Amino acid sequence: MARLIRNTRQRAVSRAPARHLVVCQHDGRFDSTVEVAAISDLIQQKDQIVWVDLQNPRAEDLALLSDEFGFHPLAIEDATHPHERPKIDAYNGYYFLLFYALRYDAAQKRISSQQVSLFIGANYLVCIHQDPIAAIDETIRRWQRYEHDFGEDVAELLYHLLDTIVDEYFPILDALIERVEDVEAQIFDHFRPESLQEIFALKRELLLMRKIVASERDVLNVLIRREAPVYPRDMVAYFQDVYDHLIRITDSIDTYRDLLSSALDAFLSLQSNQLNEVVKTLTIASIILMSAALIAGVYGMNFEFMPELSWPWGYPFALGLMAAISLLLIAIFKRRGWL
Amino acid sequence: MARLIRNTRQRAVSRAPARHLVVCQHDGRFDSTVEVAAISDLIQQKDQIVWVDLQNPRAEDLALLSDEFGFHPLAIEDATHPHERPKIDAYNGYYFLLFYALRYDAAQKRISSQQVSLFIGANYLVCIHQDPIAAIDETIRRWQRYEHDFGEDVAELLYHLLDTIVDEYFPILDALIERVEDVEAQIFDHFRPESLQEIFALKRELLLMRKIVASERDVLNVLIRREAPVYPRDMVAYFQDVYDHLIRITDSIDTYRDLLSSALDAFLSLQSNQLNEVVKTLTIASIILMSAALIAGVYGMNFEFMPELSWPWGYPFALGLMAAISLLLIAIFKRRGWL
Amino acid sequence: MARLIRNTRQRAVSRAPARHLVVCQHDGRFDSTVEVAAISDLIQQKDQIVWVDLQNPRAEDLALLSDEFGFHPLAIEDATHPHERPKIDAYNGYYFLLFYALRYDAAQKRISSQQVSLFIGANYLVCIHQDPIAAIDETIRRWQRYEHDFGEDVAELLYHLLDTIVDEYFPILDALIERVEDVEAQIFDHFRPESLQEIFALKRELLLMRKIVASERDVLNVLIRREAPVYPRDMVAYFQDVYDHLIRITDSIDTYRDLLSSALDAFLSLQSNQLNEVVKTLTIASIILMSAALIAGVYGMNFEFMPELSWPWGYPFALGLMAAISLLLIAIFKRRGWL
Amino acid sequence: MARLIRNTRQRAVSRAPARHLVVCQHDGRFDSTVEVAAISDLIQQKDQIVWVDLQNPRAEDLALLSDEFGFHPLAIEDATHPHERPKIDAYNGYYFLLFYALRYDAAQKRISSQQVSLFIGANYLVCIHQDPIAAIDETIRRWQRYEHDFGEDVAELLYHLLDTIVDEYFPILDALIERVEDVEAQIFDHFRPESLQEIFALKRELLLMRKIVASERDVLNVLIRREAPVYPRDMVAYFQDVYDHLIRITDSIDTYRDLLSSALDAFLSLQSNQLNEVVKTLTIASIILMSAALIAGVYGMNFEFMPELSWPWGYPFALGLMAAISLLLIAIFKRRGWL
Amino acid sequence: MARLIRNTRQRAVSRAPARHLVVCQHDGRFDSTVEVAAISDLIQQKDQIVWVDLQNPRAEDLALLSDEFGFHPLAIEDATHPHERPKIDAYNGYYFLLFYALRYDAAQKRISSQQVSLFIGANYLVCIHQDPIAAIDETIRRWQRYEHDFGEDVAELLYHLLDTIVDEYFPILDALIERVEDVEAQIFDHFRPESLQEIFALKRELLLMRKIVASERDVLNVLIRREAPVYPRDMVAYFQDVYDHLIRITDSIDTYRDLLSSALDAFLSLQSNQLNEVVKTLTIASIILMSAALIAGVYGMNFEFMPELSWPWGYPFALGLMAAISLLLIAIFKRRGWL
Repeated sequence: MARLIRNTRQRAVSRAPARHLVVCQHDGRFDSTVEVAAISDLIQQKDQIVWVDLQNPRAEDLALLSDEFGFHPLAIEDATHPHERPKIDAYNGYYFLLFYALRYDAAQKRISSQQVSLFIGANYLVCIHQDPIAAIDETIRRWQRYEHDFGEDVAELLYHLLDTIVDEYFPILDALIERVEDVEAQIFDHFRPESLQEIFALKRELLLMRKIVASERDVLNVLIRREAPVYPRDMVAYFQDVYDHLIRITDSIDTYRDLLSSALDAFLSLQSNQLNEVVKTLTIASIILMSAALIAGVYGMNFEFMPELSWPWGYPFALGLMAAISLLLIAIFKRRGWL
Repeated sequence: MARLIRNTRQRAVSRAPARHLVVCQHDGRFDSTVEVAAISDLIQQKDQIVWVDLQNPRAEDLALLSDEFGFHPLAIEDATHPHERPKIDAYNGYYFLLFYALRYDAAQKRISSQQVSLFIGANYLVCIHQDPIAAIDETIRRWQRYEHDFGEDVAELLYHLLDTIVDEYFPILDALIERVEDVEAQIFDHFRPESLQEIFALKRELLLMRKIVASERDVLNVLIRREAPVYPRDMVAYFQDVYDHLIRITDSIDTYRDLLSSALDAFLSLQSNQLNEVVKTLTIASIILMSAALIAGVYGMNFEFMPELSWPWGYPFALGLMAAISLLLIAIFKRRGWL
Repeated sequence: MARLIRNTRQRAVSRAPARHLVVCQHDGRFDSTVEVAAISDLIQQKDQIVWVDLQNPRAEDLALLSDEFGFHPLAIEDATHPHERPKIDAYNGYYFLLFYALRYDAAQKRISSQQVSLFIGANYLVCIHQDPIAAIDETIRRWQRYEHDFGEDVAELLYHLLDTIVDEYFPILDALIERVEDVEAQIFDHFRPESLQEIFALKRELLLMRKIVASERDVLNVLIRREAPVYPRDMVAYFQDVYDHLIRITDSIDTYRDLLSSALDAFLSLQSNQLNEVVKTLTIASIILMSAALIAGVYGMNFEFMPELSWPWGYPFALGLMAAISLLLIAIFKRRGWL
Repeated sequence: MARLIRNTRQRAVSRAPARHLVVCQHDGRFDSTVEVAAISDLIQQKDQIVWVDLQNPRAEDLALLSDEFGFHPLAIEDATHPHERPKIDAYNGYYFLLFYALRYDAAQKRISSQQVSLFIGANYLVCIHQDPIAAIDETIRRWQRYEHDFGEDVAELLYHLLDTIVDEYFPILDALIERVEDVEAQIFDHFRPESLQEIFALKRELLLMRKIVASERDVLNVLIRREAPVYPRDMVAYFQDVYDHLIRITDSIDTYRDLLSSALDAFLSLQSNQLNEVVKTLTIASIILMSAALIAGVYGMNFEFMPELSWPWGYPFALGLMAAISLLLIAIFKRRGWL
Repeated sequence: MARLIRNTRQRAVSRAPARHLVVCQHDGRFDSTVEVAAISDLIQQKDQIVWVDLQNPRAEDLALLSDEFGFHPLAIEDATHPHERPKIDAYNGYYFLLFYALRYDAAQKRISSQQVSLFIGANYLVCIHQDPIAAIDETIRRWQRYEHDFGEDVAELLYHLLDTIVDEYFPILDALIERVEDVEAQIFDHFRPESLQEIFALKRELLLMRKIVASERDVLNVLIRREAPVYPRDMVAYFQDVYDHLIRITDSIDTYRDLLSSALDAFLSLQSNQLNEVVKTLTIASIILMSAALIAGVYGMNFEFMPELSWPWGYPFALGLMAAISLLLIAIFKRRGWL
């Protein structure tokens, strides 16, 4: 069983290749070969929007980045260490945002998370991450295709990126919900001890997912409430939309965690019910068999003077006595409601 | 077992026919044949109140609507996607409100919810929903009949609509409460394992209903507290009234959820009690029968020198011994309080 | 088992006779025959204090009342419908207050509640209720007797009424507490399955009482905190006193609910302990009896060549063997701590 | 089992003798024979500090007090009725404070509480209590001995009194903690059903102690936060110190209540584990003994043609068969991990 | 089992030798032999930073300290008494801070805590502790080596000290997490009753650690939020970093406590499941063996007229009957799903 929080404080050894994609919206052209060193000049031009995407960066990339943008050393450190806790920090002139893309491994039935570190300035967006992240590629692709839909604004880029990341949570949530409902149905339809392990696995996954989504919700809340010098006021409705999605997800998770707890209670009740049934069977069968055996035992005694033994109908009488007592006991158990 | 939240993110395929009822209070006449395109002119007249009711709208209806009223695209999206979470958003010049009508299927013993999306402007009210909703039809009917009771105000229309929707919650709540009390009585009166399934089904329904009602309560709270430019101040008492109803419902749900939990605890205790009883029976019967069988076994031994075997009263003596030991055991168990 | 919330939304059919007592403090005279229609004149005189008590009012009484005082229709509706939720609403010029008198039926061991609706104006107090309420009669009697102690103030009248109502909660609480402590003592002293039903009945009663008292506490809090134009500032200490009583009651209820939960846990543990004891008895007795029976069985075999069978001391040897094995088993069980 | 809240609303019949000690710091002299009636003159002198200690006061003492100091009737009532709830009320010119001294009866293993009512004025401190309270005597003794350490300030007197009361909580807490740890160790070391009763008794005592201490913490918080006209600003650090002690106590109580809950869970698990062990023993022994008995039964059958019966080694063969089957069964149970 | 809170209110008898290290940054020289009495002169020089480290101080050391720095007596008392509760108090001109270093004893599998008391002035830092604390030595060593990295600021020294202390929490947390995951895996892979004790030990350690870390988090929060005259504004990001670490630790602890609770539930379910299995085995075996024994008993009866007894195939017939009934029973149990 792997760790829930896999990478606390140790630098994860990532096998993804380093990629240094610099995308800048300069007269409609997207350039993935811009020199890192040229960035500081680019962002001087206030009408430029620059998106820098660093995948699995080396130390020297980070150093350059730090030089070009003047990021705070603690923010750089946060960006390159795994955290498992979304957050937003306001620095002088830019925000630092930690967000998480989620991936569901249907075979292993496990969620894994990928950290995306974002530096959000007035006219730039810097993404740092270890592994390839579908939502980033998707957002860049859509930006390139529908450029004028995205407006001229970093906030809008950010909205599209976060929205794409969060949209990918829904199918994962749906997969978990389906499993919860399967396990729930299973419990009442055909009770199997294996359901227990599934309940606990689901509890674990929902707990992991909730922890990340709830923190992201708090981050979005900060983005919405704060007097933000970084994005125009009318973007609020858009971030509110992402926020609503996150609330809906945590609400659903809470509801399904409640249902899982109910399912566990039901499982335990049914288990205990089954024990009752087994013990009842044991009790009924034991009492009947022991009573019959006692009669057999009595007529197996070796006393010289046992008149029944020489009766011609002695043997059938004994068998009949056994049957009669068994029927009597069954009647008693029926009256008690045990049968 | 169907989903609690049935439609998350997928567009529900509704079979209700599209209906485009435009009702406008224009010199006391209600017109269901007004052209959609004429609405923008109507709402220019400040002394008009316009109620637009769109059932199961097509994409082109929505586009027209958006053109005529200038609604925000995100609000339109919210109005046409299923959510399971009531909310209120303030836009420039209007509110967007999500509310839910509930229906109780007495045969299936399940609650289902129907989303009502409302756009509330200074002199218009736009309802969008998929299925026919009784409360809307009822409100329109009452508006038509008692027009002057409704005043000249959108807020009053809104109050009547929300009040009608919420009033329909009470019989549903009563049906659930009756089931809770039935199951509670059942547990102590005649214990049946089936009660367990009913307890969990009720927990589920109350959870679903509470989730919706509690969010609606929050929405009403916003309506009451907020400096609302949309309705006159003296409407507050009316919305307060709906708010009170919603609080009463959530309070009752919480109380009955507490009672259900108690009932489950009682069920488990009684189940465990029953196990105790069964095991006691088993123990008492086993010990008595085994003791008697041991005596029979002893006199069934084949030793040559067993004086009792040749006693004339040996056989009755053995039977008497069995009876005596049984009575002794019964006395012991009685003293222990097991009988 | 009757409903916790008996009357939600249906008008209770009350059998108490209608009574229309109008009490007014007009030059020290109490008049129960004042015409309802004369009230509006009376309350014009600012130096008058008017107490109107309507028991089980008819619709026409309410209509008159509404005309004379000009109460809001929603308040009138609240006053005549059963609610089970204390509340306070500020209207223009008066407060509307819902409070509950409690009665404990010692035979049935159940609490029942009676709604008192109060309209509190600058110089009048209107009570509406269905059944006769002891606290109201008591307060009026004391007002008549010690008139000058009550001051010249509606707030003081209100304080005396609420204080009398709340004072009647204490003996009810004491009765419940006594039952909690009885059931607690019972569990450890002489365990009986009936304790379970008593625990759940008490949980139910405490839950009901807490729900009402906690809401009344919130209502008093509003009375104390709010800038109240209706009563003079120095009354705050008095209302604070009622508030303290209510807090003390909810605190006690919470403590005793905690103790009840503990008692239930204790009950279940003892029940489970008892099962352990029974099963231990079964195990010990079975093993001993079966071992002895096995020896008897062995010497009941019919082999031709069994030397022990022809020993003169064979029979005593067999019985001695049974005794020896039984003693050995008992020693083993003692060492294990089972005996 | 006595009541947790012993005296709710009934005046406790105290057997402690009435004592009317009036202590005043008048030019260094402590006078316990000052006439009550002289107090009003004393407290007029602003440079005087007066400590009035009334133990088990009679009604006329209270009346005098009320006259001399002009205390509010509700405060006087609160001071002389048992409450079980610490509180602070600000009156015009003085505070009224309810605090509780605790005493631990090591033999009975029960905590009892003693109410101390304090009126705190600018230059006086009035204590009212029923039973002798060690902390009060101790504080007065220290005041007399180290007079100049106490400063010239009522707040400092108050601090010393509260500090002495709270300091006496620590040994009580330590006694409870020791019992918690004993019971915890007991559970895992040598499981005894009696632990259960001790766990519930401890839960009860911790609950009682927490209820009082937590309310006192709130009272201190009010003393620290409030703009207090009664004591100088630099006293805050001292009251903060008492507050810290109370927080430390509630924190410890919470931690140990958590540990008690864990201990209860552990107890139940071990109890259930023990049941498993017993039932396993029963199962293993039954199956082995029944199998051997079956063989004995078979060779006890009376068929004429049973070849084994006439074998010379028939009897040893039968015994060997029993042994073989027993060993086989033991091997099977070992493989299953039951032995 | 030792105490969770070992030293409440009693002075711990420490065996660590007293050490009086005075470190001062005076023209780059670190001096551990500075006279205590010279400190007051040193701290007069505003450009000096003085770090005083007192290990296991004697009463006279503390008196001197108090004289030189003028610390408040309550702060001195707090510094020398064990507390188990981190806190921060603002005094006139300095902060008093209680923090805890943690140590994990891998052999005993227990966490122990060491109190560090800090007085933080404008240009001095005084540490008081009983035992040698690695983080302090480490911080001093790094300060000496990389002096100019530390800036000229007490706040930076403080940051480095707290950061070093908190960094040592992570390996301890990792050790606990590993144990949680081991015990979790154990439960489902090879169920052993010993897991129970490990679960409760872990709960205890996590509870202890959480209590300390959560209080330290609150302390850091005060440091960040408060208008702090003691350190420059740009240090906030650094303290924020320590705060984030502490939040991450408490979050992880909470998650793992949740998982432990789940693990306990799983353990209990599996235990109960095992009981079910054992009882099923008992039931099946008993019924089969008793049925066969009954047949043997019947043919062991001594009736004169039992035709089967003289059948040549009587014996095999009896054995065959036993086998047939056993197979029938097995078939029945299979159909019931018990086998």
